[in-house]
Parts: sequence; C-alpha cells; structure tokens
Amino acid sequence: MAEYWLTERVRRSPGRVALVWEGREWSYGQLSREVEGYAARLAGLGVAPGQRVGVLLPNGPAYMCLVHALARLGAVLVPLNRRLTPAELSWQVAQAEGTLLIYDEQTAAQAEALAAEGVVTRDVAALAGATDAIAPLHPFSLDALQAIVFTSGTTGRPKGALLTFGNHLWSAMGSALRLGVLPEDRWLSCLPLYHVGGLAVLLRSCLYGTAVVLQDGFDVAAFNESLDRDGVTITSLVPTMLYRLLLTREQWPESLRLALVGGAATTLELATRCAEAGVPLATTYGLTEAASQVATMLPAEAAKKPGSVGRPLMFTELRIINEAGETLPAGEAGEIVVRGPTVMQGYYGDAAATAQTLVDGELRTGDVGYQDEDGDLWLLQRRSDVIVSGGENVYPAEVEAVLREHEAVAAAFVVGVPHMEWGQQVAAMVVLESGRNVSEEVLLAFCRERLAGYKLPRRVMFGEALPLTASGKVARAEVVAQMVASN
Amino acid sequence: MAEYWLTERVRRSPGRVALVWEGREWSYGQLSREVEGYAARLAGLGVAPGQRVGVLLPNGPAYMCLVHALARLGAVLVPLNRRLTPAELSWQVAQAEGTLLIYDEQTAAQAEALAAEGVVTRDVAALAGATDAIAPLHPFSLDALQAIVFTSGTTGRPKGALLTFGNHLWSAMGSALRLGVLPEDRWLSCLPLYHVGGLAVLLRSCLYGTAVVLQDGFDVAAFNESLDRDGVTITSLVPTMLYRLLLTREQWPESLRLALVGGAATTLELATRCAEAGVPLATTYGLTEAASQVATMLPAEAAKKPGSVGRPLMFTELRIINEAGETLPAGEAGEIVVRGPTVMQGYYGDAAATAQTLVDGELRTGDVGYQDEDGDLWLLQRRSDVIVSGGENVYPAEVEAVLREHEAVAAAFVVGVPHMEWGQQVAAMVVLESGRNVSEEVLLAFCRERLAGYKLPRRVMFGEALPLTASGKVARAEVVAQMVASN
Repeated sequence: MAEYWLTERVRRSPGRVALVWEGREWSYGQLSREVEGYAARLAGLGVAPGQRVGVLLPNGPAYMCLVHALARLGAVLVPLNRRLTPAELSWQVAQAEGTLLIYDEQTAAQAEALAAEGVVTRDVAALAGATDAIAPLHPFSLDALQAIVFTSGTTGRPKGALLTFGNHLWSAMGSALRLGVLPEDRWLSCLPLYHVGGLAVLLRSCLYGTAVVLQDGFDVAAFNESLDRDGVTITSLVPTMLYRLLLTREQWPESLRLALVGGAATTLELATRCAEAGVPLATTYGLTEAASQVATMLPAEAAKKPGSVGRPLMFTELRIINEAGETLPAGEAGEIVVRGPTVMQGYYGDAAATAQTLVDGELRTGDVGYQDEDGDLWLLQRRSDVIVSGGENVYPAEVEAVLREHEAVAAAFVVGVPHMEWGQQVAAMVVLESGRNVSEEVLLAFCRERLAGYKLPRRVMFGEALPLTASGKVARAEVVAQMVASN
Repeated sequence: MAEYWLTERVRRSPGRVALVWEGREWSYGQLSREVEGYAARLAGLGVAPGQRVGVLLPNGPAYMCLVHALARLGAVLVPLNRRLTPAELSWQVAQAEGTLLIYDEQTAAQAEALAAEGVVTRDVAALAGATDAIAPLHPFSLDALQAIVFTSGTTGRPKGALLTFGNHLWSAMGSALRLGVLPEDRWLSCLPLYHVGGLAVLLRSCLYGTAVVLQDGFDVAAFNESLDRDGVTITSLVPTMLYRLLLTREQWPESLRLALVGGAATTLELATRCAEAGVPLATTYGLTEAASQVATMLPAEAAKKPGSVGRPLMFTELRIINEAGETLPAGEAGEIVVRGPTVMQGYYGDAAATAQTLVDGELRTGDVGYQDEDGDLWLLQRRSDVIVSGGENVYPAEVEAVLREHEAVAAAFVVGVPHMEWGQQVAAMVVLESGRNVSEEVLLAFCRERLAGYKLPRRVMFGEALPLTASGKVARAEVVAQMVASN
C-alpha cells in the first residue's frame, strides 16, 4: 500500500467504528482527524522518520492516536511499561536511543526522573486537538520499523525486539484466517499497549476495519459491563482475568464468538470450567519476537484437547528441536522454533542476542513444548526460566541480579511457584554470605527500589546452599518443590 | 510459506471440508491425498516447474485437483474455455507455449482436434487415483506463476494474463477483509474455473481453510437445491443467474451472508428486487488482470447506493484518469486504473500489449467509470467495447474480424444491446461489398465455424454505411440505438 494503514482504512470505511472507550465511540474518520493533529504536532517537535519515540502512557485514546501518528510519520514507537522503575525505564530509553518521551499526568513522576537524566519529555496533552498544520507525507513500507518492544530474557537485560509493519501485517492475516474476521467485529482488550498482545489488537483492527473496545487494565466490573454492553465479539485475556470473570458471571453474551487466552499455559481446570460455562475459549501461544500470535486452537477443538494451543497460524511454521538443533518427532519435547514473516528483525543494538535468537532465519523462542501426532502444540514451559504472573513476564535472571547486588547475598535463585489465580508467583531462594544476616523485609525493600512491583518476590526462602543437578546446574524443579513444600 | 498452500492448509486443518460436489464432501486431507496422486502422475509424464499445462475440463473435483497438483509441481495452469472452437483453442495453447493438454470425455472431441495439430493430450481419468509415487518437492514462491488466464481485448486477440501466487494471495486477503471470513464459510460457485472469478474462489478457499461448493455451470434447480441444503454462506453470481434465481424463489437461506454479483453492471431494477427479496447483494468489480476482485460494496451500502460497486479492497488502489493519464476528481468519468499487489505481471509473450496495459506499474483496465465523493466506484462501461452476455465477455473486435473475413463483407461493427436476462446481447451491423449479397443465416454459419457459440451475433443488421462521429470513429451509441429501434 502506498500509505499507512489508517489512511488507507479511512478511504475505505470512514464511518465504521474504530474505538470504543468508556462508552464513547470514534469512527475511523474521527480517529484519523485526531491522529493528524498528533502527527502535525509531533512533526512540529522535529519527530522525523526512523526516530525512536518512547511512549509512557496508560491505555486510552491518546495512546491509540500516538501509535497511528508515529506510524504516519515513519517514526518508531518505543512502548514503555508503566510499571518499571525510573532506572529500568532509563535503561530502555537509552538502549533504544530514544530522543523523546511522551507521558501524561499518570506517568509524570516517572517522566520527571527521566528528564533529570537529560531525556526530552512532552506531556501528551500538548499534542492533542485539532490543528491546521499537516504533517509531511512519508512513503509507507512494510519493511519499515513500527516499534521496538522490550522483552526480557535469560541474560536478565531487557532486549528491544524490532517489529516491522510487515511483521504485524502477516500476523494480522494469519490471525484473521484462524479466528475469522467479520466487518462488525469488536475486540475487547485491556492488555497494556506496551505489550505486543495489546498493540497487535490495535494494529490488526485498523487493517480489518473493525473496532477495538479498549480498557486500561483489568477491572472485573468494567470488563463485565463492556462485555454486556458493547457488542463484543472477541476478547483477549490472560488466565488470571478469565479466572476472575468466571467467578463473577454465569451468562456470557451471545455476541462473543472467541475468548482468546494466552500468556501462560491454561490449566485443565480452567479449560473445564470454561467448557461448563459456555465460554468460547481459544487457547493461544505467542511472543513479542513473533509479533504476538504463533498458534491458536479454536473452541471446538480446545474443548476436546484442553491444554493445547493448537497449530501454527497460516504463514507461520513451527518445529521442535533438541539441543543440537535437530527437528524432533511428534510427541518429543524440545525448544519451540518459529519461522515466517511475523518473526522480528532482531534486537535493537544487540547483535549478540540477535545471533543467539535468530538462527538461519528461525526464531529460537527458548520456550519448551511438543507437537502431538495431529500437529497441535503443547506448551510445557515458557523460556526455560520465565515466570508468568498475572499476565506479566518476569525474568528470574533480572530479579536474581538485583538480589545479588545486596552485600549480604552470596547466591540467589528465582522461580515461579504455581498459583491458582496468578498462574505463577515469584519466589526467591537466597544463600547469604557466611556470617551475614538480613531479613526478608530488608531484602524486599532493597528490591523494591530497583524493580517494578510485579517482579518482586512474594516469598523469600533462605537456604544453606542452592540444590544442584548432577551436571552442576541449579536444580530448578528441586527449588520449586522446596518452595511449595514450605508453604 | 515454505510449501504450497494446500500442503500448509492440510497441516493446519486436515478435517475441514474443502469441497462439496454433488452432495459429496472432501476434507482437505482427502483432497490432498487425491492431489498427490495427480501430481505424481503428472510428474511421471515429465511435467516440470514452469511448464505450461492446458486444462480443458468442466468444473469438478478433477479440475480442482489439477489446479492444486500443478501448483504443487510448480507447473503453470493454462485454463481453457470449453466453449472455444478448435481454432481458438489451438491459438491459445500455442500462445502459452503449452506442451500438454488435459481433457475428459466432455472435451475429448476438442482435444482430438488439437492432438491432430501436434499437441500432446492426456485424458484426466488416467491421472486420477491413489499411487505410491511421490512427486518431487518444489520450493514454493509467491513470485512464481500460478496461471496464464486468457482474456480478450480491444485488438481482438486473446491475451494470456500472467498471475502469480502472490497476486492470488493479496486478492484473497483483500477480499477476506472486505467480505469477512469465518472458518465455517462455504462458498457456492458455478462460475467456470477457466474464468478468474471461478479460479479465485478455489484458491482463496484453500488459503482460508473454508469449503467450495462447486457446480459445473448454472442450473437453476441444482443451484437452488444447493443453497437450501449445503449451508452456503457466500455465493458468486453474474446478474443473469441472480435474475433467474429471483424468479424461482422467495425465501433465501439464513446461512447466506453474501451474494456477490459482478461481471457486469447491476441494474437498478435488479438491485431493487434483491432488496425486496432480502438477498444480501454485494456488488463487485474485478477483472482477470487484477486476479479478480478490485472493489466490492457490502449489502447495507449496496441497498443505499444501488449500482455502485463500492471502494477498492484493502491493498488495492484505484484512480480515474483522462486520456492524458491525469487523475480526475470525484464525479468525473474516465478510465479506471488499478495499482497494487493483485495486478498481473503482464501478458505472456506479448510485450506490446503489456506495455500498453501496465503503465508505470499501474493497470490500465480500459473500463470506464467514476468515483463519487465517498470514493465509491461507479462502473459505466466495461472496456470501451466489451459485451458482457450471460457472464461471458465478448470482444467486438474479435467478432468483427471474423465477419470481415467473409468475402462479401466490407465493414462490420459489433455492439451489445441491452437485454433483461442476459445483460447484453451480441448484435452486428454489417456493410456489404458493393454488388455482393449474403443472408444473415449464411453469415452466422460462417461465424459459427470460427467462434465460440456465446460470441455469435444474435442479430445482424445490414446497413449502407456505418454511422460515424464527427471525429470519424464509428458512433457506437448510434449503432446501438438503431439496433434497439429496429427490434
């Protein structure tokens, strides 16, 4: 296409609903006019094609406008997690070589801390509203970067996944062919727009010409109200949310044709409850580095095979490999490897991590699973050590590094322990320096200064030594077992 | 994707229905096994990547298998119109440099005539059935040719439009986003698979993982029976078919969400009748050189703007130009020009025609229309002189050339006259050589030997001279007026 999707979309269906937010509706025409205002003001600030712009905002119309305005200008979105500490944010902005950060009243304090370090910051309120200025036209290309989305990894350092418009387009197409798409679709999402799962809903809806029903964070009452009021046809959830919804409602609206649940393995119990309650559960597997969805199982199949996440989307290919990189047969567990046009271009400014992750054009996800005889994927474990708690990914290495910074700590090992509502809870086993002592409270206070709240260990267990495997690695399963036993 | 769509589709949904034919269903798994048999036997005949293979068959499972088997082998489908004379067929096969022609009992006589001219022919029955042989794997590319589809033109010589898998893929995607697509869709089509409209339904359904309900030609009783029995959700029609359906039924099945009507302008009367009968009419404009659909209007809008064909599909762009190639503003009629990834690669072996038709990457359709203030397309006239009769395109230049071959004919001019049921009827005005005489019957018999039946003039009017415009061109409108007046 010659121009950015929103421009092309408005030419085709200006009257269709683009956004529903707190009961108010924006048509694509209205959205586009607002986006033009943002684009003109950003251009006035000197935002140019290829420039990385940090966005530190709650979900809402302003965020949606910025995503489109940056794309319209050829600038690159760097969505930042609001739950990060100033130190974490500062590291990410620097890593992305971001030169401008956009905040609002909710994130002003964090922005102030960054401004003190020399980052140029702007209040989003100053970018909104109509203007006669018109941002320069920028030629649109599927190969251009849309965003740098940070994702942590086994090294403990967040890495910026480079996602192009092409990555998102093929993701949108593969998703549409698996889930179906109808002109009257309305997709309810409260997932943060700084996560690929939230961002993808917004971009694909623009391509489809369908509506996003947006919320900021999961409020069970507001979510239920929207489900009943807004003609929602699809929604994206993490298991924690679905669990809470199941506790609060018995009737599900007839309009709802799919409840996509991803982010962590769905337990058999949750799948069974959904089947009983008539929830059209579609289990899904995806990751930032593949622009979101990789595989999804539709409700009819999910009811028969609870726990599986189905087959790869059209255009996406999967294989399971052993440590030697050899393809494993059906039924054997190994690393999940993804190939296809949704796979990211690499990690920004991190050639070593890119080379480790993109091998011969394939994405080594680090996630462990197997494909059964039918080709359906079963996810056994996210990246060998990631903890998924309430929909957020927590990388043990990052938490361990902070714990080890404390002078009393000799060794630390962080695991996820199973939790009914949150999926997993962060827990740490700590070995102290000989002769030193420190309380759990002091250690947690130390962490709180350095880590976002959702990454904090909910429990700390002090040990004499970390249990090791025969090969000398920490025995993760043994640590988890000790944590569970001591509960 | 690494492999051809059918292979990828079977990995994802082998159990879904691919084909419904005479009440029997084939799953994608079953279809694929049959296709493998065809592919292995074709490979055994030496069919190699890039080779052009003529297919002269009625619609049916064998045709569907061949389309996929040729794609599976990397060979190029040359679908041939069964209604052509041996001379016309021979010309097309030679033009496409086809080295093999596949026929069945219904087309055996035509194939025999071609065999007499040295074309290698094979009965499709000999290619069917299970086999242990496996055709060699051929790397799949979106840039590879899928078919050479013949379309006539103003020069009167059929031209072979080069369509790639990429052309079809983007057409399928743009169509899905306009029409919507659901996993349970079933598309009823009786359009011939040698027309792009029929072929596209088959290819897109494979990408979507949805079912084609196939019929060979339009039989109103069989069509109605299928509509009521087969859970049809979408159907493709030409106005003539829709007109006949409206005469025979009052109730339309609830499953039907779209009746796509294209191939000729829909009259206001037909649109009104559809609205009254509750037919979900979607008007559409497309052409072979753009891999079928270019623009489509959905039922809700079509009811408000009867006669328009709506806005271009996503990924496809339109403009209207004057004779100088300048873009015309809304409301002004001119030539419809199409840009985008569905536009063909050119005409096979016809650089001159390609250069005339593809100008700066844009497709000059030759069709005349305008876009209104909303961007909706109104089609005024297919290629300045094409006649659309009962869904078949007839090119006056081709009929005129045959008429002029007759020694008694000095000049001939062929037009379409409006016809309620057929859309247009072919009619010829003929000027005889001075002193010569020939009857209408003799002239038609002369044409019948050289032209497919649907191209034959239904009426011949003898004149003293062809009426001319001020600039010396034949006054088409005046000829049509005289024809209508004399009826």
